[in-house]
Amino acid sequence: MVSFEVLRELHIPAETKIIMLVMDGLGGLPLQPGGKTELETARTPHMDRLAGEGICGLSVPVAAGITPGSGPSHLALFGYDPFRYEIGRGVLEALGIGFELGPDDLAARGNFCTVDEEGRITDRRAGRIPTEKCAQLVEKLRAIQLPGVEVFVEPVKDYRFVLVLRGKGLSDKLTETDPQQVGKKPLPVTALSQDAEHTAQLLNTWIAEAAKVLASEKPANMLTLRGLAKNPGLPPMSEVYGLRAAAIATYPMYRGVSRLVGMTVLDVGGETLEDEIAVLRRHWADFDFFYVHVKKTDSAGEDGDFQRKVEIIEYVDALIPDIMALKPDVLIITGDHSTPALLKSHSWHPVPTILWSRVCRADAVREFGETACSQGGLGVFPATDLMPLALANAGRLTKFGA
Amino acid sequence: MVSFEVLRELHIPAETKIIMLVMDGLGGLPLQPGGKTELETARTPHMDRLAGEGICGLSVPVAAGITPGSGPSHLALFGYDPFRYEIGRGVLEALGIGFELGPDDLAARGNFCTVDEEGRITDRRAGRIPTEKCAQLVEKLRAIQLPGVEVFVEPVKDYRFVLVLRGKGLSDKLTETDPQQVGKKPLPVTALSQDAEHTAQLLNTWIAEAAKVLASEKPANMLTLRGLAKNPGLPPMSEVYGLRAAAIATYPMYRGVSRLVGMTVLDVGGETLEDEIAVLRRHWADFDFFYVHVKKTDSAGEDGDFQRKVEIIEYVDALIPDIMALKPDVLIITGDHSTPALLKSHSWHPVPTILWSRVCRADAVREFGETACSQGGLGVFPATDLMPLALANAGRLTKFGA
Repeated sequence: MVSFEVLRELHIPAETKIIMLVMDGLGGLPLQPGGKTELETARTPHMDRLAGEGICGLSVPVAAGITPGSGPSHLALFGYDPFRYEIGRGVLEALGIGFELGPDDLAARGNFCTVDEEGRITDRRAGRIPTEKCAQLVEKLRAIQLPGVEVFVEPVKDYRFVLVLRGKGLSDKLTETDPQQVGKKPLPVTALSQDAEHTAQLLNTWIAEAAKVLASEKPANMLTLRGLAKNPGLPPMSEVYGLRAAAIATYPMYRGVSRLVGMTVLDVGGETLEDEIAVLRRHWADFDFFYVHVKKTDSAGEDGDFQRKVEIIEYVDALIPDIMALKPDVLIITGDHSTPALLKSHSWHPVPTILWSRVCRADAVREFGETACSQGGLGVFPATDLMPLALANAGRLTKFGA
Repeated sequence: MVSFEVLRELHIPAETKIIMLVMDGLGGLPLQPGGKTELETARTPHMDRLAGEGICGLSVPVAAGITPGSGPSHLALFGYDPFRYEIGRGVLEALGIGFELGPDDLAARGNFCTVDEEGRITDRRAGRIPTEKCAQLVEKLRAIQLPGVEVFVEPVKDYRFVLVLRGKGLSDKLTETDPQQVGKKPLPVTALSQDAEHTAQLLNTWIAEAAKVLASEKPANMLTLRGLAKNPGLPPMSEVYGLRAAAIATYPMYRGVSRLVGMTVLDVGGETLEDEIAVLRRHWADFDFFYVHVKKTDSAGEDGDFQRKVEIIEYVDALIPDIMALKPDVLIITGDHSTPALLKSHSWHPVPTILWSRVCRADAVREFGETACSQGGLGVFPATDLMPLALANAGRLTKFGA
């Protein structure tokens, strides 16, 4: 793939608009050998027409055989090498609840747990306390202060919460405190490099204070911290691509990843794609690049509901004319990964993709589906190629070399 | 490609079986423009059916345009980047005669040669002495001992032999002794780094002793050493993939490369694919991954015998039902490189490949052949992708990132 160093040199201004429509978990599998996938089953006249006018292919989210989580797969769509730029678990957990992570933030996934009189863990999830209880405990933990840093504690779900320290010089070269089995005491945070020692000290101080706060609680009388991770400090899209980029997504996790790459995250004020398209229309003049996210294809796949996934794809197809009415210069329709209903989970299978523009060099593909796209002009290609291709098709990249 | 560091984190246990059937030099070329290749000419109903149920593509052994030897091409099939993990010539020569190289071994290709009274080489191959003579000379050289290391000398063929030193701290940062032209004296071994100086000294001592032993011989009164190389110490498949891997191959070279990647090399006790399948059946419960090697496709290609290569492919096809009767979860049918009868040699052309599993996402390919596979869902892909794909299809990889 082309490096950001090169792209920084090549991008040029243009009055063009790019839309990347991401149907989460779009790729699928047939339920029966020789059958059709969800997308192939769906009646999609509008996307079929765009497939005919555009260039198609199968996008490999991360690498052959690798099933990605939503973090790495979205980074790849946005053009960020997902092996180079890893988003830590603590950061993802914070993004997932909509916490606005700053550049100096260190985030951790917290679990409430139960310990005996000796301090040994008897239940790593504190009996899966309800979220309301979690919120009450978090409220108490907010009283704990640390010197020189801001401390945030936020409930997530059941026994899970997020801890964020904000301050200069924090490091995430740290071990986790969860011993991963009952009968053992929580471990201290230890520094994996010298410059992390101060951060380890701060966290151990916070844990000791938290233990006092929780001592009389039942069953959640202790906690563990995992996935300690800093904001990865990704170079923003404005700088590497020269784009004013906006994210239109309703789920916190996707809004969070978008914010990490420097997108402006727009308020949707609703749950549907119609709501998202309304926002797209409203902000059409303000940005060059729009990431539009549809979550429900993935949810249906995860639920193993083939038919519902088909219907959601058809629902999206019916709204394509509303998107095209804005006259984008480049429209990409893809997914971040496959979520076949057959597997009820994310999978490694490449994702059917259309890149539509007036200069895309259309191929012979006439319908939008996995098998059809495997014959497309983009071939089987890495997802990280999409952003450079989008920029090129939008007239936003100049020549490399003389 | 995904790194071993990542794969180490992602592999999970499963009760699934993978077979990789490698027809050596499988890829071919038509004898006449517009004609069919060997594989396309062969009648292969069983492989055609698997192509229909599976996903197909063309595997690039090492890189576009690069004709690989069997070492790098097999490393790539086994998922080892052949540019990163190079197997030295001395090591390949030792593996080729079935020498069981240990982790501390340094191997060299030896050539007997003829020198004049001044010590200048007059024949770099000592008149191509017969193998029996080579064995007699090797027997004499075995008397030479060196301090602190074990010394092995083994005949190969004609004027070629293998020298192996076994001991701690040996280095292969060494020059060769063959001056590459007649009229020059053999060169001393010189160290290319400081920690190789002791090894260079040992080898020069051995050469001086060998010169004395050979002084009265005719025409093989001297020798040269080339391709000095250590066992590359590859990370074993058990560790990077979590697989109990077995090799079923009859030729020493392929057994040797398999041993280098940590496979258990099974005794075949016969020369045929029937013999190999019998071993496969016998050890079915003992391993997760089976590499099964067919040599004769390559031999026919090297001999320029198009028709014989066709017949061998048909012979292999007829045995596919015996392999499928074992009910593997994943079956890969491929070659390590192309050996077109037209060229009578290895070539750079990508290799037709089938990956069959219940969750492979079948493509539209209905027959096994070069042109058909170029339309397959795997596209034209690096051979190193096959192992991650095999693991994914076998349910042996968990999600990357959250």
